[in-house]
Amino acid sequence: MKIIRTPRRYAPSLLTALLLLFSTFAGGTETGKKPYLDITQKLLKKGLTEEGAFVILKKITSLGHRLTASPQAAAAVELMKQEMEDLNLDNVHLEPTRVQRWVRGKEEAVLISRMFGISPLTVCAIGGSVPTLEKGVTARVIEVFSMDELRKLGDQVNGKIVFFNRPMDPTMMETFRAYGRAADQRVNGASEASSFGARAALVRSLTTRFDDVPHTGLMQYAPGIKKIPAACISTMGAEYLSSCLKEDPDLRVNLKLSCASRGSVISYNVIGQITGCEKPEEIILVGGHLDSWDKGTGAHDDGAGCVHALEALRLIKECGLNPKRTIRAVMFMDEEFGGTGGRDYARAPQREHERHLAAIESDRGGFLPLWMGVGGDENTFERLKKWEYLFKPLNMIGIRRGGGGVDIGPLAEHGTVLMGLIPDCQSYFDLHHSDNDVLAAVHPRELELGAVACAVWCYVLAQEGLTP
Amino acid sequence: MKIIRTPRRYAPSLLTALLLLFSTFAGGTETGKKPYLDITQKLLKKGLTEEGAFVILKKITSLGHRLTASPQAAAAVELMKQEMEDLNLDNVHLEPTRVQRWVRGKEEAVLISRMFGISPLTVCAIGGSVPTLEKGVTARVIEVFSMDELRKLGDQVNGKIVFFNRPMDPTMMETFRAYGRAADQRVNGASEASSFGARAALVRSLTTRFDDVPHTGLMQYAPGIKKIPAACISTMGAEYLSSCLKEDPDLRVNLKLSCASRGSVISYNVIGQITGCEKPEEIILVGGHLDSWDKGTGAHDDGAGCVHALEALRLIKECGLNPKRTIRAVMFMDEEFGGTGGRDYARAPQREHERHLAAIESDRGGFLPLWMGVGGDENTFERLKKWEYLFKPLNMIGIRRGGGGVDIGPLAEHGTVLMGLIPDCQSYFDLHHSDNDVLAAVHPRELELGAVACAVWCYVLAQEGLTP
Repeated sequence: MKIIRTPRRYAPSLLTALLLLFSTFAGGTETGKKPYLDITQKLLKKGLTEEGAFVILKKITSLGHRLTASPQAAAAVELMKQEMEDLNLDNVHLEPTRVQRWVRGKEEAVLISRMFGISPLTVCAIGGSVPTLEKGVTARVIEVFSMDELRKLGDQVNGKIVFFNRPMDPTMMETFRAYGRAADQRVNGASEASSFGARAALVRSLTTRFDDVPHTGLMQYAPGIKKIPAACISTMGAEYLSSCLKEDPDLRVNLKLSCASRGSVISYNVIGQITGCEKPEEIILVGGHLDSWDKGTGAHDDGAGCVHALEALRLIKECGLNPKRTIRAVMFMDEEFGGTGGRDYARAPQREHERHLAAIESDRGGFLPLWMGVGGDENTFERLKKWEYLFKPLNMIGIRRGGGGVDIGPLAEHGTVLMGLIPDCQSYFDLHHSDNDVLAAVHPRELELGAVACAVWCYVLAQEGLTP
Repeated sequence: MKIIRTPRRYAPSLLTALLLLFSTFAGGTETGKKPYLDITQKLLKKGLTEEGAFVILKKITSLGHRLTASPQAAAAVELMKQEMEDLNLDNVHLEPTRVQRWVRGKEEAVLISRMFGISPLTVCAIGGSVPTLEKGVTARVIEVFSMDELRKLGDQVNGKIVFFNRPMDPTMMETFRAYGRAADQRVNGASEASSFGARAALVRSLTTRFDDVPHTGLMQYAPGIKKIPAACISTMGAEYLSSCLKEDPDLRVNLKLSCASRGSVISYNVIGQITGCEKPEEIILVGGHLDSWDKGTGAHDDGAGCVHALEALRLIKECGLNPKRTIRAVMFMDEEFGGTGGRDYARAPQREHERHLAAIESDRGGFLPLWMGVGGDENTFERLKKWEYLFKPLNMIGIRRGGGGVDIGPLAEHGTVLMGLIPDCQSYFDLHHSDNDVLAAVHPRELELGAVACAVWCYVLAQEGLTP
């Protein structure tokens, strides 16, 4: 692409300075046909010039991963608190939440033994899995593509390793939907397999990419079930194992995991706000989760969401905006492992004196923002949809139904309208819960646009409220 | 982000098969409220399942860069012709175009000499530049931010190296606009500087990123002007040089370039089509340019555009669609250097028997597609805008004014309506004309969505035409 033009001048001039000055004073009023458009432009320009979200994300990811209950998660709590203090946010504090500690341990290995030798696969334990014995589990493997298929096999899986190999459906534009339809294997696969006497579960990684990177995530053991070890192999490894099984259905696999649960520790949600100047008790919350998986550095999941929230408040504050209602950033702890941070936040005694009108969760990565998702009843949605034009300068499609998540979900009990930032999701599952989720996978401008979208939305809601 | 659901089944079933079968027969008719929506879904599903665009792009980029007149460009011509033949496209042929040969040569270097020693900067010659003498140009440096500033300095730049250091404006959402406003430095900077007696030009790379990667591109010498060498330094290098100049305005810079022009060679546009079954002489053209700069491998610029076009035809053909009008893919040669491919295509004698209704250029990279740009008069635009709903399943914003480019521009003489695919542009200039423009910077699904958008649009235009 080439653009050739006759020379034009672009340099800050007195005129530009005057225009900027003017827009500073004109901002925030409801005069003009399209209220808040001037403020949106101002937030956008400041964001794109400074790229503050990326600056904070660099600090967060430099700590390493932030697995719930890990030392790095504790460091991240302290970092975010300090960042909020340095920004002069109001009411900066920590709220405790008890979280489970699980460690991956030293060894993770899968070996396929066939007539012609031994092949290793890359592997990672699924979060919450029990370990194997030191020598591992060695058993024949049975491949299934659905829970129904497993149930039909019934006792045939007894003594074997069950290999769940259903791919994410690549034809779905909404990759989150495809993920939702494949995630039962990782979450419940081991329990289901155990109920028929299986000795371990191997699960195809939940990603649309064909590569050799395994993706972890959470699993749950059904109450009373015998806990068997469970691990994810890469999509490439899964295809390879599948083809090996076609050649030699009697092959043996040896799985070794040394992960372990180690009780619980106290961790924290990190909270800071711009207190509303007219209705301080009415709160617009924006947040993400500070914990991550122990693969990669949780840059998109959910470092991006945390910095979306923090940068939104920075932009609002440093643009000199004075919201009527309180805009609060919350970095939730433990979304990935138990969701305790979100539950404890909603149930903390402080909440009794507060009224959370809306909560915006950003937990879909730092990609190009496309929509603001809005829950609540149809009337509320229609009323808020009138602000859609504010997202046009950000090249977003607009406002659609959606929102909510593990962290803010418990606030629904208080009548809070749940919302969420919805960015482009085409590459999210390439990196989700894997070693690919690092700072280099984040684009500073795309990340910043998400923060600007949150800033605009928080400010409009803080000024206008949600009721007519 | 975590999603936990109760198990659901996802597997091809008899019902799914029947539904697919039904959609095959229902496709293409104008029955129903939203014509072509079924076909759009079909093209989308096939594209996302097969990711064919990425497969071809991998082949193209494996050849290396494809600088006009280079051996690699010749290889790319042959590769694309073979790909079209293997696809059983109609009328596969080459059309000649004479292109200029310019080579970068062995040496490119910039050394800053100051009191405290010598610092090297990363650098690349601007395309078309003359070389320096073997010992290079050594001179004092004068920094400017605009052509106006240069003209005001006038004879003060005599005997010096002019350093153009105006950044791309980061506050513009449309990075192409920011590029357009900064590109005069690279294109005309050397000529303007030469007119005041300067000995060479150094230009800040045109990118929104702050890194140490120089970006090349085209320059032009004004007729009769003394040709002086010109090179781009990275944004980081530019900031460094600027700060050095503040400390020591008398510092010397030595610039060495061994690039050279080497006459011209014959190269080719590569053409293939699905011939229309009712109005074969009426053509909907879709294309990109096959040449690239000699930095990186031209994966986004414009390998992406070429594979958008070729994959669009593959999808249409392999979905069994039979367009009424001809859908033609053209891989233009020499967009970057002289634009001869586009001009020669429009003026070739074969065009006399053809009627190009519309031409769609894809030359903005393989990122997430956001709009289809449509030129032509207001009536045509309004008429075509009714098809906007077809882009919704692709999560695109819709149809907007825009389109055209160096390759298809000359077709405007024939009354062709110029169009263009408009993807997300936030990271395009990170990699444009630089070593960053490689396959690893392309996401297979985002790339494919661009191809699907082209396929849908070509097919609708081929069926419906552009007039009422």
